[in-house]
Amino acid sequence: MSGALKNDLLLRALLRQPTPRRPVWLMRQAGRYLPEYRATRARAGNFLAMCTNPQIACEVTLQPIDRYPLDAAILFSDILTIPHAMNLGLEFSTGEGPVFARPVRGAADIDRLGVPDPHGELRYVVDAVSLIRRELAGRVPLIGFAGSPWTVASYMVEGGGSKAFAHIKRMMYEAPRELHRLLDLLARATIAYLNAQIAAGAQAVMLFDTWGGVLTPAQYREFSLHYMAQAVAALIRDADGRRVPNIVFTKGGGAWLGAIAAIGCDAVGVDWTTDLSDARRAVGGRVALQGNLDPAALFAPPAVLRAETLSVLESYGPGTGHVFNLGHGITPEVDPQQVALLVDTVRNYVPAAESSTD
Amino acid sequence: MSGALKNDLLLRALLRQPTPRRPVWLMRQAGRYLPEYRATRARAGNFLAMCTNPQIACEVTLQPIDRYPLDAAILFSDILTIPHAMNLGLEFSTGEGPVFARPVRGAADIDRLGVPDPHGELRYVVDAVSLIRRELAGRVPLIGFAGSPWTVASYMVEGGGSKAFAHIKRMMYEAPRELHRLLDLLARATIAYLNAQIAAGAQAVMLFDTWGGVLTPAQYREFSLHYMAQAVAALIRDADGRRVPNIVFTKGGGAWLGAIAAIGCDAVGVDWTTDLSDARRAVGGRVALQGNLDPAALFAPPAVLRAETLSVLESYGPGTGHVFNLGHGITPEVDPQQVALLVDTVRNYVPAAESSTD
Repeated sequence: MSGALKNDLLLRALLRQPTPRRPVWLMRQAGRYLPEYRATRARAGNFLAMCTNPQIACEVTLQPIDRYPLDAAILFSDILTIPHAMNLGLEFSTGEGPVFARPVRGAADIDRLGVPDPHGELRYVVDAVSLIRRELAGRVPLIGFAGSPWTVASYMVEGGGSKAFAHIKRMMYEAPRELHRLLDLLARATIAYLNAQIAAGAQAVMLFDTWGGVLTPAQYREFSLHYMAQAVAALIRDADGRRVPNIVFTKGGGAWLGAIAAIGCDAVGVDWTTDLSDARRAVGGRVALQGNLDPAALFAPPAVLRAETLSVLESYGPGTGHVFNLGHGITPEVDPQQVALLVDTVRNYVPAAESSTD
Repeated sequence: MSGALKNDLLLRALLRQPTPRRPVWLMRQAGRYLPEYRATRARAGNFLAMCTNPQIACEVTLQPIDRYPLDAAILFSDILTIPHAMNLGLEFSTGEGPVFARPVRGAADIDRLGVPDPHGELRYVVDAVSLIRRELAGRVPLIGFAGSPWTVASYMVEGGGSKAFAHIKRMMYEAPRELHRLLDLLARATIAYLNAQIAAGAQAVMLFDTWGGVLTPAQYREFSLHYMAQAVAALIRDADGRRVPNIVFTKGGGAWLGAIAAIGCDAVGVDWTTDLSDARRAVGGRVALQGNLDPAALFAPPAVLRAETLSVLESYGPGTGHVFNLGHGITPEVDPQQVALLVDTVRNYVPAAESSTD
């Protein structure tokens, strides 16, 4: 499928194996803060056109890898590819985010949905993964991803982004069985989709649960975590003779890190509202942790950005099992020079204990 | 100032004194879900016109008290009255939320700001408090309120609502001393404002920290909690021979409840993402708790709403120190009948231990 992997730091850290230094990648690292990305986007026309074209998805995935010594590439795609393939009329309106022309509001709408074929409607994603693996030629591992069933459902039911989540919460309280039917379908779709990405060459996979944090603890367990557990349990565990680690990230899920760690995933993403030292205590060594610099720290003066980056590294403490990342996606206004500084700081970090000569 | 207080359940529960049943009020209980509110608003013209007119503020404050057997009234006002009085050109555009024509972006902007006089620019609020106390005639206590310095600053610096808080976070990282200067000014303004409300008749006060949850733990302590502690320490403690309890509520602050309880406040608000049983453990009996039904539960069928309400009551457990509330403000789409059911359920609740005949 491709040459031997030259840098496996990410895979080792995600499995809590020793690494000479902490691996680093950034959520949304292939994005609008990069001038080369904006140039490609101008050429492609729009975001969805970029996602659905394997050549462009590949080109954009590699842009941050060519520019920075990052330890992982992440597939350029979107968490809404599955509902897009379900023919709900997805559009990305400028400045407004995703909008579905045909939101899912009741049993009849759910009846019409089926699990998209990863080699049919979603073939462009699988093709992009294969192409990226070929082009990466073993430089760094490729991460595949999907949205969590709850998060994807929330976009489908709300018809786009939301603040109050009134429609899906109404469904949750009024017709919980229907919502479970939708979530079960999405869990099955997610499993097929992620396993196809793994079969095509994804060397790690991540579940993005952007909206799990709007739920009560009981609702989170029942409507979000349960379906991520279902997905994690059904993922292909080994490919090419290597373990394929998985990462589960619930934004705003700081209180539930222990519960997430218990579903059998390899690593848990942490947003910036929880200290990694507390997160590590919460997961009790069962999983690796990924995170968690405040994305806004990239607006800080260089010396402050450096100090904040070091503070995240220090807060994890000694030992393996930490993948450095932001606590959420990088924002378009960031100066690319700042990312260079961040990556450099992580790469050159030597834990205090190990650098001490006492 | 007015007749004796006929229902002091709220004040007693906030001070963890025994009460025969749990008191209940709802954040934003005077709001758009009430047809009488919408009628007043249509007459007044707009939201700001309602806030700045003591007669209208009084009328609207009393509407939910006249309709439901609630245990507290809360002043009808807005957390942005202080920056409005600072002449930043506040407007509430329909559907868009608050917008400041002159946002605060740097040292020169901060230099121009002063502490508004509660008996000058903010006199309409003090007058509303006096009028409401007179009209309430001791039926239930009146709660005054203000936004937290951090939350108010975030609107002032962003120029309105925000998702990424890019401007204020940039200021936090680039010019933390300037931000501290702004927060210190706002803390002093908040103290003068809340103490004027207390002097005019507010029998409890609440600090709304809507956006503390977007900070890292260290930033939360430094930029939000610190200034709420400053405010709490300077509040008038007794009026009319009674203690004036204060409530501090950070939305998304579930991880910091123990730290909030330690600043010397009487009660801590809890949003719906934390179980009250866990919240109670976190604060260790130092403060009362207020919350925390998911506002979306008001969309549930009556039997489910009742079960969810009971579940919140049960989760607090036995003993005093719980004020029932939502975990955030009530939303405009709610059926007023559902609020009647909720209030009735809380009023008739008998803890399992006390109702048991075993």
